[in-house]
Amino acid sequence: MPLTLPEVLAAIRPVDPALFAVAKNHLDSLTKPRGSLGRLEELAQRLFAISGGKAPTMDPARIYVCAGDHGVAAEGVSLFPQEVTRQMVANFLAGGAGINVLADTAGIDIRVVDAGCLGDPFPPHPLFAGSRVASGTEDLAVGPAMSVDTCTKALLLGASLAAQAAAEGVKCLGTGDMGIANTTPSTALFCAYLFLDPETITGPGTGLDASGVRRKAEIVAKGLELHEKVIDSGDPVAILAALGGLEIACLAGLVLGAAANKLPIAVDGFISTAAYVAARAIAPDVADYAVVSHASAEPGYAPIMNALDHKPLLDLGLRLGEGTGAALAIFLMRASANVYNNMATFAAAGVSEG
Amino acid sequence: MPLTLPEVLAAIRPVDPALFAVAKNHLDSLTKPRGSLGRLEELAQRLFAISGGKAPTMDPARIYVCAGDHGVAAEGVSLFPQEVTRQMVANFLAGGAGINVLADTAGIDIRVVDAGCLGDPFPPHPLFAGSRVASGTEDLAVGPAMSVDTCTKALLLGASLAAQAAAEGVKCLGTGDMGIANTTPSTALFCAYLFLDPETITGPGTGLDASGVRRKAEIVAKGLELHEKVIDSGDPVAILAALGGLEIACLAGLVLGAAANKLPIAVDGFISTAAYVAARAIAPDVADYAVVSHASAEPGYAPIMNALDHKPLLDLGLRLGEGTGAALAIFLMRASANVYNNMATFAAAGVSEG
Repeated sequence: MPLTLPEVLAAIRPVDPALFAVAKNHLDSLTKPRGSLGRLEELAQRLFAISGGKAPTMDPARIYVCAGDHGVAAEGVSLFPQEVTRQMVANFLAGGAGINVLADTAGIDIRVVDAGCLGDPFPPHPLFAGSRVASGTEDLAVGPAMSVDTCTKALLLGASLAAQAAAEGVKCLGTGDMGIANTTPSTALFCAYLFLDPETITGPGTGLDASGVRRKAEIVAKGLELHEKVIDSGDPVAILAALGGLEIACLAGLVLGAAANKLPIAVDGFISTAAYVAARAIAPDVADYAVVSHASAEPGYAPIMNALDHKPLLDLGLRLGEGTGAALAIFLMRASANVYNNMATFAAAGVSEG
Repeated sequence: MPLTLPEVLAAIRPVDPALFAVAKNHLDSLTKPRGSLGRLEELAQRLFAISGGKAPTMDPARIYVCAGDHGVAAEGVSLFPQEVTRQMVANFLAGGAGINVLADTAGIDIRVVDAGCLGDPFPPHPLFAGSRVASGTEDLAVGPAMSVDTCTKALLLGASLAAQAAAEGVKCLGTGDMGIANTTPSTALFCAYLFLDPETITGPGTGLDASGVRRKAEIVAKGLELHEKVIDSGDPVAILAALGGLEIACLAGLVLGAAANKLPIAVDGFISTAAYVAARAIAPDVADYAVVSHASAEPGYAPIMNALDHKPLLDLGLRLGEGTGAALAIFLMRASANVYNNMATFAAAGVSEG
């Protein structure tokens, strides 16, 4: 039986806040000055709460790299030609992309999702998961990127991937994206959900110059104006349909599905964070399950984090996407879980307390 | 034949700056927007330069956790009793400490060095490396912490461990410390080498309250006044002898030895950075080989980084020492090396360039 969106949403519950104190007590009994592992201890508390009070474990971990094409690419908002989306999907399958290398370094599996590429369906490959919802979106500056029905299908694709991963024993998820021009819909989504200004948060993406960034900000502003009614309605799925992308909606669904299945999920950079913001607008409790991996080098990222009151774990100037930052964050999540589970207590180690 | 300090220093050479451009050309040919892996790309360039223009590899990596006791502990500058140094050494050997868990998570070997603990020698254990230089230091607030001869022996202990690791095929080193009260000598060393003020950079260490921090700053100031002549002489080894510690001098020697053997070395937090600053005062070219792992949560750390013009890789609020931050940084160094070596080029992957 395929999932429905109401079923997914009904399964999303906040974590039990009492579990944070239980975790803190345990962490304070371990052989280190209290709190001296900083954010690893904060993370360990949250992972313990997400696990419902069991020893948190992150392995096996899996990143879904979701790809889609964007009608708005026709507006010349990206430095790279649109066929690069497909070419990079082939690169993921062949193991040559940044995410392949970093996921491999971190001991994380990846799956590639053709949520909405253009062109012929790809031949089967063991790394593929799910199947294409539609072949690209429409141009958000001239009409809705997709229908609400298509957007819902993409959300459910992501949610069903999370459910399947949980059923297969996966303990931690990560998000990754590929889609030429997809910083444009992401920027539009941040503006719509968080009431930010396109002039402030539009950035160079893969490497636009100043005039390119200006043009991109104009396209975003045009889309926001065109879809003003939908935005004002506050309907989060309708907003995602009007301004989003197929891979973005799929990633939003993955975040919803992670929360519904009580799995922690590492949210990658700019595009994945747009998907997370969409998911949060649909179901605010997903925030308990999401770990914002890293501060994207996109100049808009800092005001977005301020609006969300989140502090990313890492700040390495990454702006590649694909899940590369999520892979590094999952390593830190695993480190946090291992600290929680494997360090000796003062009592067991015979170490005097301060 | 045991090493001498002049031999170690004679072997330290800066990396070839031309290799950075060679590395950048290669990184720009890989399937990602130029520079989009941010600090991982900067790190990859440096690791390529350190390797002398060969494919950088970080494995096997090894962290030396160096322990020592401090006469200045008698001044009541730490929350923990002095016997905790020995107890934690036992904890390292038993595998229960933070560094055991994080090194294990990151796939890094550790070795434990009794550079200068108090009490009877420890029974042999396979994780031990090197042998004790002296049993604790004297109180730096009433006299030199150690003689220049003892300090030189501790430097050579560290340098010989690095040389031995290189001979055993280790490709990347990391520093770790254990020594109750050792933020006090570290703070004094930062003040002496970098002309910083004890009131500005003295912090709580393992958890002193405000009056404890004030008292600790007074002890540091007293030591600086007492050893003013040595500090004014600018002799870096004499300064390290007057104000340092046996594990700190050993770690400074490890940094010198890493550079002499052309190995990258991840410098852990507050104490390890003091050792690095000492090594840099002795041989400025060590800076080419050292990676400052993380921003210690000690409040003095930010002005210290400003004085060094360094930006740590990670900022996770860690203040444990032991090499815990170095373990996380070595994971990022490995990730950088893997990006350099294993990503596909645009040409090989058939991906269009922007």
